Amino acid sequence: MFNKKIVVVGGVGGGASAAARARRLDESAEVTMYEKGPDVSFSNCSLPYHLSGLIPDANSIILKTPEQFKKQYNIQAEVNSEVVDIDSKQKTVQVKDTQTGALRTVNYDELILSPGAKPVMPQIIKGIDNKNVFSIRNVVDIKRIQKYLVDNDVTDVAVIGGGFIGLEVIENLGQTGKNLTLIEMADHVLGTIDDDFAQLVHKNLYDNDVNVILEDGLVEVDDDQIRLVSGKTIKAQAVIMAIGVTPDIALAAKAGCKIGVTGGIEVNQQYETSIPDIYAVGDAIEVTNMLTRQKTRLALAYPAQMEARDAVDHIYGRPIQNKGVIGSQVIHLFDLNVASTGLTEAACEENQIEHRAVTVIPQNRVSVMPDTSPIFLKLVFGYPSGEILGAQAIGKSGVDKQIDVIATMISMHGHIDDLTHLELCYSPWFSTAKNAVNIAALVAENILNDEYQQVSISKVRSLVEKGAFIIDAREPNEYAAGHITTSVNIPLSQFRQRLDEIPTDRPVYIHCQSSQRSYNMVRALDNLGYKNITNISGSYLELMQYEYFKDQTTNRESILTNY
Amino acid sequence: MFNKKIVVVGGVGGGASAAARARRLDESAEVTMYEKGPDVSFSNCSLPYHLSGLIPDANSIILKTPEQFKKQYNIQAEVNSEVVDIDSKQKTVQVKDTQTGALRTVNYDELILSPGAKPVMPQIIKGIDNKNVFSIRNVVDIKRIQKYLVDNDVTDVAVIGGGFIGLEVIENLGQTGKNLTLIEMADHVLGTIDDDFAQLVHKNLYDNDVNVILEDGLVEVDDDQIRLVSGKTIKAQAVIMAIGVTPDIALAAKAGCKIGVTGGIEVNQQYETSIPDIYAVGDAIEVTNMLTRQKTRLALAYPAQMEARDAVDHIYGRPIQNKGVIGSQVIHLFDLNVASTGLTEAACEENQIEHRAVTVIPQNRVSVMPDTSPIFLKLVFGYPSGEILGAQAIGKSGVDKQIDVIATMISMHGHIDDLTHLELCYSPWFSTAKNAVNIAALVAENILNDEYQQVSISKVRSLVEKGAFIIDAREPNEYAAGHITTSVNIPLSQFRQRLDEIPTDRPVYIHCQSSQRSYNMVRALDNLGYKNITNISGSYLELMQYEYFKDQTTNRESILTNY
Repeated sequence: MFNKKIVVVGGVGGGASAAARARRLDESAEVTMYEKGPDVSFSNCSLPYHLSGLIPDANSIILKTPEQFKKQYNIQAEVNSEVVDIDSKQKTVQVKDTQTGALRTVNYDELILSPGAKPVMPQIIKGIDNKNVFSIRNVVDIKRIQKYLVDNDVTDVAVIGGGFIGLEVIENLGQTGKNLTLIEMADHVLGTIDDDFAQLVHKNLYDNDVNVILEDGLVEVDDDQIRLVSGKTIKAQAVIMAIGVTPDIALAAKAGCKIGVTGGIEVNQQYETSIPDIYAVGDAIEVTNMLTRQKTRLALAYPAQMEARDAVDHIYGRPIQNKGVIGSQVIHLFDLNVASTGLTEAACEENQIEHRAVTVIPQNRVSVMPDTSPIFLKLVFGYPSGEILGAQAIGKSGVDKQIDVIATMISMHGHIDDLTHLELCYSPWFSTAKNAVNIAALVAENILNDEYQQVSISKVRSLVEKGAFIIDAREPNEYAAGHITTSVNIPLSQFRQRLDEIPTDRPVYIHCQSSQRSYNMVRALDNLGYKNITNISGSYLELMQYEYFKDQTTNRESILTNY
Repeated sequence: MFNKKIVVVGGVGGGASAAARARRLDESAEVTMYEKGPDVSFSNCSLPYHLSGLIPDANSIILKTPEQFKKQYNIQAEVNSEVVDIDSKQKTVQVKDTQTGALRTVNYDELILSPGAKPVMPQIIKGIDNKNVFSIRNVVDIKRIQKYLVDNDVTDVAVIGGGFIGLEVIENLGQTGKNLTLIEMADHVLGTIDDDFAQLVHKNLYDNDVNVILEDGLVEVDDDQIRLVSGKTIKAQAVIMAIGVTPDIALAAKAGCKIGVTGGIEVNQQYETSIPDIYAVGDAIEVTNMLTRQKTRLALAYPAQMEARDAVDHIYGRPIQNKGVIGSQVIHLFDLNVASTGLTEAACEENQIEHRAVTVIPQNRVSVMPDTSPIFLKLVFGYPSGEILGAQAIGKSGVDKQIDVIATMISMHGHIDDLTHLELCYSPWFSTAKNAVNIAALVAENILNDEYQQVSISKVRSLVEKGAFIIDAREPNEYAAGHITTSVNIPLSQFRQRLDEIPTDRPVYIHCQSSQRSYNMVRALDNLGYKNITNISGSYLELMQYEYFKDQTTNRESILTNY
């Protein structure tokens, strides 16, 4: 019926999904997949877990062999086969055997490019090509790193870049007892969360003995040390580069496919490139952010799989939807989990999107149950629209749940009101009756209605320096255990009898442990006619973590009496 | 400014939330809460966890004392104070001191009823009032049970009713080594999941040495045994009644508030009863199901809290939304978690809603990671609309996440298409790249588009009996380890070479382990022009569990060679 010849360039998430989808839609198609590496299908996101031994056998990361593709799906998967040229007029590709160098020409009806993205390795860094400098893209890479670390009794490793891959390498090498240094060019790790939440991650890295160096970059690699832009030298017998990836566009560009503003291959709504019958999917393309409506790149597994599926559906005349991406991600880092979706506050500012954000710190389950732990949850929303724009969550429990719920709301164009009334699963075993996302939305609703004022914990240091009037609304025993040096302790349980201690002629800032008690006090004082009462969002729990890393790593004076 | 006098009848979720909200909106209000029991605020959902000792001190389940309400919120919380009468013309209530019997009259501007629901205790059961028969509503009850079990060295307990409370009692007493019998009147436990999924719960109970008796009821209680409708006698020195709750409407009815068709207090969109200035919230009222548009009752914590908040908002002239409820719930049961939201297939049938359902069984995280376990996920959706109507999930990992995402989709009127493209958090630590809900939606899309046929595992036994042609698409070693007695083993990896073994003149049913391989084979055979090829939804993984409990507890012949 169809008898199409479909050629797929690149395996893994995008390529393998495209090939399998083509087979499911068309038993008559001839489907061939060319992969330049030795493995056509592996879990690239699982690679770092080999470094800790959590995945003892690196070969197990390989999900499907060419033989399995052949037997199960009748898909021809050819490894060590690099597509080096495309003749889009003749509709042929040139395939090079990477082991023999032999070239052959193969024709196609439809060509799907899924070349992925490659680690950035700036040649300006001296020694970048040394044998002790590594990057991570495939099973071969991770085996090579592991072998080098073992063969050379490496005790000190420097990881360059504090994104997801860099942190996953840190997390896994952290289990092996090596001395680790993480170097990040920006002022905080993880571009997918805001600066205040990143401080919680910095603290976690610090607490796990990782030497974290921010706002610095690699200049030179030696056998046993590296040198940074700042002039610092760091002991390291191995260096893992994880400063980012760049779309692998060489083949597409050579063929004449238009390259987009972000440096990724430009595609239309159906993932067609600018050349007929050539599609592109995965990390190499540029996509549209649903929220900013701007072009972006998103190197994530599931979007790649859906793009591949949709491209093939289009080949077979099926209508597809392409609403753009929002980006949802999560990382496990020692005993913390960090998840996020949509836009950060920083991204809103960059895109000039008027917004507000709230931070709440509910417990992961009912306080009377054992092993409860706090969830730090930030909800970002449009102002005055109330449109949900993004969220970030950090905690010991699986904060992926909260972020997945908010990601769902974002993709459905949900409003703060939709989140306040959302009925989620509850049992004391799993959560609090008011779920964390409900609580965040309830606070957000107050901000949206301009019912009360708040200030971020990032402003507390300057408030202290300016001598602002700060009330600590916790009980005296909590205050005694540690507090903001200049704060006055007026517990929620006492303030109605101590109103004369609260000034009316200057701004008053209130915090407690997690903002719940301070919120009640702010509302009551507003009600009583006080002007200029402000809640400190995030309260003491976030403030401690926010100040910690900088207090420990610089000589500055702490604004807290204790931790 | 306001100086309203607000009287709240009943504490806990609804009452305490109403009182606290009133205080936050109005510092001038006089807020009084009357609770007939000794505790005004406790985590009722946490009560069963005292029986296992997970919560060692039952008093810790009390969240707030009257003193704390007074000091923190300036709320007058009076315990052991039962409101016994309402004069809605004079706007007064009569309060009885339950310890002295003394009565007093209190006036109100606004009255909020939050009386809750009480355990059903049919007086027709002989011995129902014996001292060894218990129900669970408050801290006093749970202390009393615990004391009785210890003081009397109880070794055998019967739990009557397989709903959430009954199962949570089973789960907690199960940790103490007692002999447990669970008696359920229906043919399966948990009305919030369908029969097929309930079999997985039955197996779990059976595997944990719980004597599960279905379709039977309690007739008589003795000191050391109980007698059932069937005539069976069961050894039990203590009986815990958990067959359901009934709304506590006596006070409202006496005052003349209209009672709805479901037996709950009737309220309008703003939670006003039929009498001016009397509101009702929580387990005692009837609400509207967003999906069926029918009146219903929903005894869950968060809806009660939101109703309370909304009622108070309405008192203060704030607009509220009331879209109706969907019901989302989760239970931890030994090593399994069971969660659900929206409508079951059974509920769709009952409400004559044309629907389809799919069951998928993905792993909770990437297969190369350690400690993976399957998630049984059923997605129910409208046909031909594709509107998402409900979901059920069972697994060792936290299936609350999948259900929360689908609950969010339902409340936003999401369509199957919205779920296929949903971007959720992914890392091998947390999930598979194609998240379980994505996978369910992708299969649902095929059903919605009438692209392939499926049959539920509940039909397999009759297929076997009728001698249907069933293909087991797994590899020979999997087939050897256990299979459907009458199935033919044609692995996905071999079928293209063995097409001549597949009949064209009769229906063919295909399954594998989790439906992934069989799905691919079905699609290929459809493509090759075969008619009447049907996938067995749920496949071997669900079938084993589905058949297990009945195979073990009856004398019927198994349709499986092994487990």
